[in-house]
Amino acid sequence: MTHIRLGPNQYGKAENRLVRVYRDTDRHEIRDLTVSTALRGRFDAAHITGDQADVLPTDTQKNTVFAYAKQKGIASIEEFAITVGERLLIATPAAEGARIEIDEHSWDRIPVGGAGHDHAFVRGAGTRSTIVNIEVTGGGRRTHVISGIKDLTLLKSTGSEFHGFLKDEYTTLPETDDRILATSLVARWRYDHADVCWDSSYRKIHALLLERFAEIHSYALQQTLYGMGEAVLDQHPEVAEIRFSAPNKHHFLVDLERFGLDNPGEVFIAADRPYGLIEATVERAGASDPGSAWHAVPGFC
Amino acid sequence: MTHIRLGPNQYGKAENRLVRVYRDTDRHEIRDLTVSTALRGRFDAAHITGDQADVLPTDTQKNTVFAYAKQKGIASIEEFAITVGERLLIATPAAEGARIEIDEHSWDRIPVGGAGHDHAFVRGAGTRSTIVNIEVTGGGRRTHVISGIKDLTLLKSTGSEFHGFLKDEYTTLPETDDRILATSLVARWRYDHADVCWDSSYRKIHALLLERFAEIHSYALQQTLYGMGEAVLDQHPEVAEIRFSAPNKHHFLVDLERFGLDNPGEVFIAADRPYGLIEATVERAGASDPGSAWHAVPGFC
Amino acid sequence: MTHIRLGPNQYGKAENRLVRVYRDTDRHEIRDLTVSTALRGRFDAAHITGDQADVLPTDTQKNTVFAYAKQKGIASIEEFAITVGERLLIATPAAEGARIEIDEHSWDRIPVGGAGHDHAFVRGAGTRSTIVNIEVTGGGRRTHVISGIKDLTLLKSTGSEFHGFLKDEYTTLPETDDRILATSLVARWRYDHADVCWDSSYRKIHALLLERFAEIHSYALQQTLYGMGEAVLDQHPEVAEIRFSAPNKHHFLVDLERFGLDNPGEVFIAADRPYGLIEATVERAGASDPGSAWHAVPGFC
Amino acid sequence: MTHIRLGPNQYGKAENRLVRVYRDTDRHEIRDLTVSTALRGRFDAAHITGDQADVLPTDTQKNTVFAYAKQKGIASIEEFAITVGERLLIATPAAEGARIEIDEHSWDRIPVGGAGHDHAFVRGAGTRSTIVNIEVTGGGRRTHVISGIKDLTLLKSTGSEFHGFLKDEYTTLPETDDRILATSLVARWRYDHADVCWDSSYRKIHALLLERFAEIHSYALQQTLYGMGEAVLDQHPEVAEIRFSAPNKHHFLVDLERFGLDNPGEVFIAADRPYGLIEATVERAGASDPGSAWHAVPGFC
Repeated sequence: MTHIRLGPNQYGKAENRLVRVYRDTDRHEIRDLTVSTALRGRFDAAHITGDQADVLPTDTQKNTVFAYAKQKGIASIEEFAITVGERLLIATPAAEGARIEIDEHSWDRIPVGGAGHDHAFVRGAGTRSTIVNIEVTGGGRRTHVISGIKDLTLLKSTGSEFHGFLKDEYTTLPETDDRILATSLVARWRYDHADVCWDSSYRKIHALLLERFAEIHSYALQQTLYGMGEAVLDQHPEVAEIRFSAPNKHHFLVDLERFGLDNPGEVFIAADRPYGLIEATVERAGASDPGSAWHAVPGFC
Repeated sequence: MTHIRLGPNQYGKAENRLVRVYRDTDRHEIRDLTVSTALRGRFDAAHITGDQADVLPTDTQKNTVFAYAKQKGIASIEEFAITVGERLLIATPAAEGARIEIDEHSWDRIPVGGAGHDHAFVRGAGTRSTIVNIEVTGGGRRTHVISGIKDLTLLKSTGSEFHGFLKDEYTTLPETDDRILATSLVARWRYDHADVCWDSSYRKIHALLLERFAEIHSYALQQTLYGMGEAVLDQHPEVAEIRFSAPNKHHFLVDLERFGLDNPGEVFIAADRPYGLIEATVERAGASDPGSAWHAVPGFC
Repeated sequence: MTHIRLGPNQYGKAENRLVRVYRDTDRHEIRDLTVSTALRGRFDAAHITGDQADVLPTDTQKNTVFAYAKQKGIASIEEFAITVGERLLIATPAAEGARIEIDEHSWDRIPVGGAGHDHAFVRGAGTRSTIVNIEVTGGGRRTHVISGIKDLTLLKSTGSEFHGFLKDEYTTLPETDDRILATSLVARWRYDHADVCWDSSYRKIHALLLERFAEIHSYALQQTLYGMGEAVLDQHPEVAEIRFSAPNKHHFLVDLERFGLDNPGEVFIAADRPYGLIEATVERAGASDPGSAWHAVPGFC
Repeated sequence: MTHIRLGPNQYGKAENRLVRVYRDTDRHEIRDLTVSTALRGRFDAAHITGDQADVLPTDTQKNTVFAYAKQKGIASIEEFAITVGERLLIATPAAEGARIEIDEHSWDRIPVGGAGHDHAFVRGAGTRSTIVNIEVTGGGRRTHVISGIKDLTLLKSTGSEFHGFLKDEYTTLPETDDRILATSLVARWRYDHADVCWDSSYRKIHALLLERFAEIHSYALQQTLYGMGEAVLDQHPEVAEIRFSAPNKHHFLVDLERFGLDNPGEVFIAADRPYGLIEATVERAGASDPGSAWHAVPGFC
């Protein structure tokens, strides 16, 4: 079997559920994270002979995440991911790269007497997310930082058209100049460099994405996404590209004529499946384009 | 097989995903509902011989939900559930009861320029829910209205103790005077009557539950829930009882001493399973207590 | 607040993921369980004042489950549930009842060289399930044993009709004498007593349910379920009643005439929501009917 | 904003739930599929100006899937995916590629009287899956076919060791020469060409993966996966590479010494999160390696 060999590979500890409480004053802060680590590199022996001498166990990777939450703190998920990734690379000489993915679950202070409570919180909607991918190069390391948002469910009750599309013999969709547009957005943007104020950049981009979704008159989900991405690149020079994955959550107008009722855009049935799935990238011409920033290995998610 | 017979039964259409847009002015309102209907009664023939003459199809129940969303509108989920339930009973002479369950998914207006947008929305956290159970009695109908909230995820980073508990030879849990308390709450309260301003009552109870969770110094999740329920009954004479189902979402302090680090309530691992599950009722003495308001049939959820 | 009091309540540890390996010989046996325990009773102090002196912690309940898996073994999930429930009641004098629910996940031996492997397994479909409910009565205890099956997804590609149903002005469903019938069944049967060979009874009922689903010519899912239940009661005198909860998973014939194609029952779209939900009980006349066997508290699942 | 442009993109209809019944004889056959289609190409106008003239709607893609299920039939999911993909490319001149992903859900005939029933089925475990990626090249098309299996949950109760691994100051994991090894496997293999008997190749690879998992004495999940992949490449010259994504589903031995009990590999708690995640490729040296076969766009899954 001399012609068979190990190809791309990575291994790590997925979905460490880490909650960090800052209690320096009576007014606590919390960061609630799901952290996944992965290392890739020269791990042939581990696969072929079962010799684990080069392999830092996934259990150790987990321990590192929790120890670093205390030792280094979590200024932002991006910074914490970089710090953990660099540590794992130092601890694992055979590794040629690290990929750290962190989701941050949002919490709001519970309102009591007009103010937010010191140490009681209610979970919010939407998830902030980062992927940090560090490549070991000849002379050092190259770090790619991707920030993003997941599970951001958006809906417009008007201001959305869809017509003028290509038709063939299987086309039955009527054209419309007024429909519901709804999606559950995943947006991820890659930073050009790592000299960024992560929390501030995230907050502004989050607000901008919402605002553009609301204000763009839509001729297709594609065009809405492009407009959202264009605004981010236009106002955020630190961002090299932004990628969207957006289900088109169909809302079908219910036929009420059967019951002698009109239905001018009022009663809809929301469908689960199938759904449209629109994926698009908006990028800065001339920016570096390392597909490897996204996945070390195509086909591994 | 003369001694075998049909026992309790019900049938209906579950999880109709109904979105209702109010577009009377440019400032749209939306109500996004998941509606489940069920009828119970003298449906022996349908089961035993397959004769469906007494059975209003679940497809018709679905049609009724969507037609009524237009014809009657959705002033509140409680009122809509009552209206739909009464209609289904009228249309189905063999039915002896109807159970309508509606979840309402929350949407906030997207903030643009300091104000909420007219027709663009972002999904919020937590789900409002109602169960309306109508019994056909000799002379008329008896209507039970239950309102509630689901998926309300709450966390306190301090102000929670747990000690003084019963011990046996399998007890290893250390006592603590400071832990994280977290839950994903389901609360359902049964109204004493149906002469209620549903939206206002819901909003006040929702706020009160949050506030009490925050302010009660906890000696156990049971005691927190009881205090929350007591406040609702105390301030809301229209409520006869309130039931909680609350997982105790464990957050374990990570042992960092192994790495030479202390961990005074700062770094936790959030566990998925197993979890504590606390279920409790707080009720008004002397209130009617129809268990049948909750489930027509024990064992059917 | 003298008129406010604690109502029905229970607490326990839910979803303990227990895997028990029997390795007495080289041919291993495994039982893979999800165990949930709950106690109910006189726990007023725990709720009202926070005094936990009567409360056996859920953590201790968990420890008991795992210790008993070694000490008592798992002859069947029914017997294990009874054993654990009785132990928890002994350890908790304030308890007036225990409810133990166990799901068993199926594993088949991996076929190697025509035989099943000694210690390598592949997960099967469907889940066996039991609920044991023990009530403390004046002079002793009363034990109710419910066995069942979950997630049993069934489909008939013909042999299913639906017509002759009640119609009103919202009825649009066409009648049919040939449709797909599909469901994801939950069946739970209550034993009349506890002197049962659990594994054998389960295997026979499981096979009988499958066979009857296949062989009954269906005029409605209700009638299919009734026939399945009737067969179980007819052949199993140890069973007092059986309850079904069965979604009617709709498969809609796709309209291909638009494309010049006929579609005589060949191409279907399977819908997620809404779905019909049929719940029915078949019972032995004269059998005891303790609704409390199913849920200690209506509204708690 | 002249420096901002559209980057990689694709769009389609995801998760069409298609059930195809073959009823040429009384002994029906069924194929139960979830089909997702996606097109990529020169769709700049759709994104930038909203002009949809080049866009075949996702609704039309859906119609094509259902119409082709009748017109072309489903000999295998691989062949059906190729046929649908080619059609969508013909219908959409601006497209430069198509990606069709199909999952097939398994059904077994219900056993009745020692034989499988003609038209009644029970759902099995595990999901067969294919990804077909067609690239439009200058002179024609290049088709990549990937087959695979998802949700194949496997467990070995012995025959698994883990020791000799790299250690650092955060390493606390004890070495072991006997543990439970469990995973929920995703395996995908890329064919070197499309002249394959798809169903037969799938069945043999499926059986071989199971057998090798059972028989390999494991020193790490990596080494088990490598051995499984090596066997596939060795016995299947039509396969160019195989990729695994395998969670290491941890089963922790429960400490029963606290209760005076030993636990020699008998009682385990199965953990949900975190889990190890092992991803590995085994490939044939000299085989073409088009990463693009897996994802048109890195970062889109």
